[in-house]
Amino acid sequence: MYKSLLRLAYGEETMNFRSDNTAPVAPEIMAAMMRVNEGASLAYGADDWSRRLDQVMSALFEREVRVFTVASGTAANSIALASAVPPWGAVLCHREAHIESDECGAPEFYSGGAKLMLMDGEGAKVTPQAVKEAVARQARGIHSVKPAALSVSQATERGALYTQAEMMALGEAAKRAGLAFHVDGARFANAVAALNCKPGDITWRAGVDLLSFGATKNGAMAAESVVVFNLDLAEAVERRRKRGGHLICKGRYPAAQFLAYLEDGLWLRLAARANALAQRLGEAAGKCLSLAVESNQVFIRPGAEALKRLRAAGAEFYDWGGEASGEARLVVSWSQDEAEVERLAGLLRQFA
Amino acid sequence: MYKSLLRLAYGEETMNFRSDNTAPVAPEIMAAMMRVNEGASLAYGADDWSRRLDQVMSALFEREVRVFTVASGTAANSIALASAVPPWGAVLCHREAHIESDECGAPEFYSGGAKLMLMDGEGAKVTPQAVKEAVARQARGIHSVKPAALSVSQATERGALYTQAEMMALGEAAKRAGLAFHVDGARFANAVAALNCKPGDITWRAGVDLLSFGATKNGAMAAESVVVFNLDLAEAVERRRKRGGHLICKGRYPAAQFLAYLEDGLWLRLAARANALAQRLGEAAGKCLSLAVESNQVFIRPGAEALKRLRAAGAEFYDWGGEASGEARLVVSWSQDEAEVERLAGLLRQFA
Amino acid sequence: MYKSLLRLAYGEETMNFRSDNTAPVAPEIMAAMMRVNEGASLAYGADDWSRRLDQVMSALFEREVRVFTVASGTAANSIALASAVPPWGAVLCHREAHIESDECGAPEFYSGGAKLMLMDGEGAKVTPQAVKEAVARQARGIHSVKPAALSVSQATERGALYTQAEMMALGEAAKRAGLAFHVDGARFANAVAALNCKPGDITWRAGVDLLSFGATKNGAMAAESVVVFNLDLAEAVERRRKRGGHLICKGRYPAAQFLAYLEDGLWLRLAARANALAQRLGEAAGKCLSLAVESNQVFIRPGAEALKRLRAAGAEFYDWGGEASGEARLVVSWSQDEAEVERLAGLLRQFA
Amino acid sequence: MYKSLLRLAYGEETMNFRSDNTAPVAPEIMAAMMRVNEGASLAYGADDWSRRLDQVMSALFEREVRVFTVASGTAANSIALASAVPPWGAVLCHREAHIESDECGAPEFYSGGAKLMLMDGEGAKVTPQAVKEAVARQARGIHSVKPAALSVSQATERGALYTQAEMMALGEAAKRAGLAFHVDGARFANAVAALNCKPGDITWRAGVDLLSFGATKNGAMAAESVVVFNLDLAEAVERRRKRGGHLICKGRYPAAQFLAYLEDGLWLRLAARANALAQRLGEAAGKCLSLAVESNQVFIRPGAEALKRLRAAGAEFYDWGGEASGEARLVVSWSQDEAEVERLAGLLRQFA
Repeated sequence: MYKSLLRLAYGEETMNFRSDNTAPVAPEIMAAMMRVNEGASLAYGADDWSRRLDQVMSALFEREVRVFTVASGTAANSIALASAVPPWGAVLCHREAHIESDECGAPEFYSGGAKLMLMDGEGAKVTPQAVKEAVARQARGIHSVKPAALSVSQATERGALYTQAEMMALGEAAKRAGLAFHVDGARFANAVAALNCKPGDITWRAGVDLLSFGATKNGAMAAESVVVFNLDLAEAVERRRKRGGHLICKGRYPAAQFLAYLEDGLWLRLAARANALAQRLGEAAGKCLSLAVESNQVFIRPGAEALKRLRAAGAEFYDWGGEASGEARLVVSWSQDEAEVERLAGLLRQFA
Repeated sequence: MYKSLLRLAYGEETMNFRSDNTAPVAPEIMAAMMRVNEGASLAYGADDWSRRLDQVMSALFEREVRVFTVASGTAANSIALASAVPPWGAVLCHREAHIESDECGAPEFYSGGAKLMLMDGEGAKVTPQAVKEAVARQARGIHSVKPAALSVSQATERGALYTQAEMMALGEAAKRAGLAFHVDGARFANAVAALNCKPGDITWRAGVDLLSFGATKNGAMAAESVVVFNLDLAEAVERRRKRGGHLICKGRYPAAQFLAYLEDGLWLRLAARANALAQRLGEAAGKCLSLAVESNQVFIRPGAEALKRLRAAGAEFYDWGGEASGEARLVVSWSQDEAEVERLAGLLRQFA
Repeated sequence: MYKSLLRLAYGEETMNFRSDNTAPVAPEIMAAMMRVNEGASLAYGADDWSRRLDQVMSALFEREVRVFTVASGTAANSIALASAVPPWGAVLCHREAHIESDECGAPEFYSGGAKLMLMDGEGAKVTPQAVKEAVARQARGIHSVKPAALSVSQATERGALYTQAEMMALGEAAKRAGLAFHVDGARFANAVAALNCKPGDITWRAGVDLLSFGATKNGAMAAESVVVFNLDLAEAVERRRKRGGHLICKGRYPAAQFLAYLEDGLWLRLAARANALAQRLGEAAGKCLSLAVESNQVFIRPGAEALKRLRAAGAEFYDWGGEASGEARLVVSWSQDEAEVERLAGLLRQFA
Repeated sequence: MYKSLLRLAYGEETMNFRSDNTAPVAPEIMAAMMRVNEGASLAYGADDWSRRLDQVMSALFEREVRVFTVASGTAANSIALASAVPPWGAVLCHREAHIESDECGAPEFYSGGAKLMLMDGEGAKVTPQAVKEAVARQARGIHSVKPAALSVSQATERGALYTQAEMMALGEAAKRAGLAFHVDGARFANAVAALNCKPGDITWRAGVDLLSFGATKNGAMAAESVVVFNLDLAEAVERRRKRGGHLICKGRYPAAQFLAYLEDGLWLRLAARANALAQRLGEAAGKCLSLAVESNQVFIRPGAEALKRLRAAGAEFYDWGGEASGEARLVVSWSQDEAEVERLAGLLRQFA
């Protein structure tokens, strides 16, 4: 009955904050796919749009890059990492990293059995100090795997951001330890929009070798990519993409998605909107926030009972850290209805 | 000048017969993607469309099947085969099979180093006898890889078809030798349309365990799949798809493509049209045909000089077996312009 | 000068307690290799001695087993685990397990990218509760790797032992969670000698599927093996051994080592001797022991300064947990000189 | 009865010409293992003998090399090749090469799914021309695997030898095609003894990057190695050896085998003896030889009926190319009894 009353008060509409990957495709991107859907074009990335994408990305990053589109973030991360570490290498990452927790061992598969070495850190962020210590722990010569890459998520799995200065410091730590530097940018747009920086400032200028640049969570259909800054790694990425089955024949469609995504700053507009709505939720949640809101993800810890009430009121979201944790993640997507956000904000204020 | 005259005679229009994978997306399939592009839906294949796809495919095949969509035919073949053979297994296939020649070793990658064992045969088809002999050659116990799967293409890389009787015989040969049976159906629609049979008749009724069922070449954007008949293999296929990065988050779009493809027989209409136009080319080519036309691919061997003239006249296609071979492949796609076919047919008649 | 005085007091002789793998080969085992070194014998394990080994091991374990000799414990562990888990599987083990820390990712290599899931526990031992919790943490369906095997070391990397009752409880926990059960028995002899039990009691009777049964540390030259209790796994072990390059052509020599090792209880005599000498060190170390001595390894934590003095006095050993930890491991081998043990015991008493 | 008569004529003694890997260990090598079996020594290749081996091999090859001992030729070949080719690479080799036919796909396993590309050629030898053609056939860009290494056997699986000039020509062909150059030297001693050349002349001076240098077939117990000339590949070989489980803890024993093997030319004496006895068989076989005898293997093709009679007379050997081929391989080992050779020679003369 409590549930019914709540629904009565807030309307029947769902409040779906499960993930930004439940959202549909942005109309601008859909339209772009329609536009390229005309006549024959060369297969396997030899089409005009795929080739233009390299140029557009090079302009975006203010230097020469190679771009390889793939079907998922898991593929982008795994192909990038496998191209950066030998099979006996170790990838240093945060304990909550997507590559560790959500990819069913895809990095291990693509790399031929490399190992992830886990670090801790607030907001799912890692520090140069943590990197240094992890490398030192592993100094057992031939008997232990060899630290070979650092992988960070920007934004992190906790919605936190690395500032440009932090990225520079991590890049230096990686370089000093002889590690390749990879960024999981499934939510790269949210990071760039929030940091209000140039894409190059938090990637290659900080020593990043490879970026998993995703568009799917922020409005595309299935457009993820590996952006290669360290061009020595391009052949490996290209070959691994092919062997992973991610060189699709009709390359114009993922290319068109990315071209539309980047054109006229669409990617940043969509991300900025989601970020701003997340801020509203953050303000409403007040002291029940478990972390400051920096991008489009909001983490609250009002307790298990309160979460139950939120759900009874129609809110949909995932528990974080198990049901008993009393913590939840709320993700705002590019297409989130403003009224939906307001309804949830109203509910959250009661915990603030 | 010769070139100019030909262009004068036949117009400036291109005649692109390079491959059916250069074609755009069929309007019905594009429309279906537009229709599902509304509101939030569960990610990673938990959406309504993905779940309906299992039902629709089960109805199509007249038995329970599991379907796993992937981004490419290479992914479908590799995931299927890796799920059917152990790392020390051998996959028996034709020397010209796509898995041997065109996938940059993807089956070896996905399977952890299985081996392809090559067989010969007219029209890129294999026979029960060839299977039997290949298995016998390998009978060296622990020192040689273990024959573990038979993989055939339907239609083959030479456009040839296996009749239902031939598939039954191959299925029996596979069973007798303890081999799993896989079909590469990148052009399955062309085969079913030409054979005028039920999909089940040339798959599970003949003992097929796994089918790579593709839609991309016949009108989809990027919709390939592994159809699992031997349900014991479903978990392996599902896990390998995930680890390969082919479980995409917005599953509604590949599902929608397949649903539209299969609805009201669209897939067979598109394939039948391409097959029929290929027949016209075959008739025109007459005695310069190197193989009878059975699906949407036409192989001609008019000699290197004649091929040069065809190209000068505006025809685009691939040499087959190297430039010196004097042989070429002409592929007719679902979207091929009839006038284009007529123009090429006119050119071919001079060799007939 | 302090160093010189100590050396004066205790003599110049080294006290090498680095590891039992620095010891030579037991004379009985050397003699056995000499005995079989006569005439031709079939290659690749078809020789008489290799075949007899299966029988001898079956008798030892009081049930049918298959034995596959390999060149190292790393090979035994990796081949066993790869045969027990799919590439998307997870192996649960202690954070200090040899497979995690000392094999440079060999289990990941052999398994095609499976993952190790680490558990904590005193004495490098794991508990059924820890297993249960680790499995529960991983319950994220397709997105996380699938717990597929439990691996424990007997004796552990900290010299601790699992009693028969503990092994039974772990076996039940593994079974309940659907896990295969593997034992790293690089020091299996030390465990059996100390527990004074039948080999079957702490292996297959407790549900163990696969045992890495090593002899090298306890007197052999290079004789390690995978003992297969779950005969369904035998083909995989055999094939993986071959592909790993561990099916050597002159199989009589590793077989002869194992036959001599097991004959007349040599293995238990050698192990019991080492265990007994370790006890003496333990008694001498008294309260500076960091763990009770249960097998042939002794862990002391007298502080960094004290360890320096021990080394100055001629003792050789490894720090444990880094130099700053002030902890050290002393391993007593089958061939350890009693006088050497007495000298070290004398030194240890000062810390007791 | 025919059988009995023959046995009567030639005595009950077996004539075992199955393989040189059925032979025992040479007394000099056994003695060397006895000699090092004294006291403790550092584990995992840090012992004095292992370190000396690098020096001795460097002297032997007249330049700096790195040596990594392993347990089998399969391991040596697979680790070497995996260190020379990327997973998307192709290894060019003869159709009858050991790596293709006898290693159960070990090279594919170690390399993460590389592919073997087969060439034909008399005596299981390949030519620069065959290499050039194989590379040309594969020129399909991203869709086909990338030729990355050439592997030849010296002596070949047919007992044939590459002269120094032939090796130079192959090395040049490999270099021109961008291929690493590997030699399977399971019978390297037989080759060097027969060619009467310096080891460096048919390896690094001809551009060889990696040599699988085996001693087992020519008198050792289990001593195979990867000799690295291209030192850039040393780390990969070392790491892959560790991950393959071939870095054994008691490294002094394989090192001692090799040191004894190379000392005072033992390896060449043993090989020369076997070669000379093989020559006697070759002379006896006369026109039923299917190939000229160049090392310690003799191939005869007297027909299936004749082979049956040979067996009835007590000769043991393997059919070559299937029982129906009427061809057989006779291998003479370092320990072959001269009388045994004479008996077989007597039998062969009847076919000559």
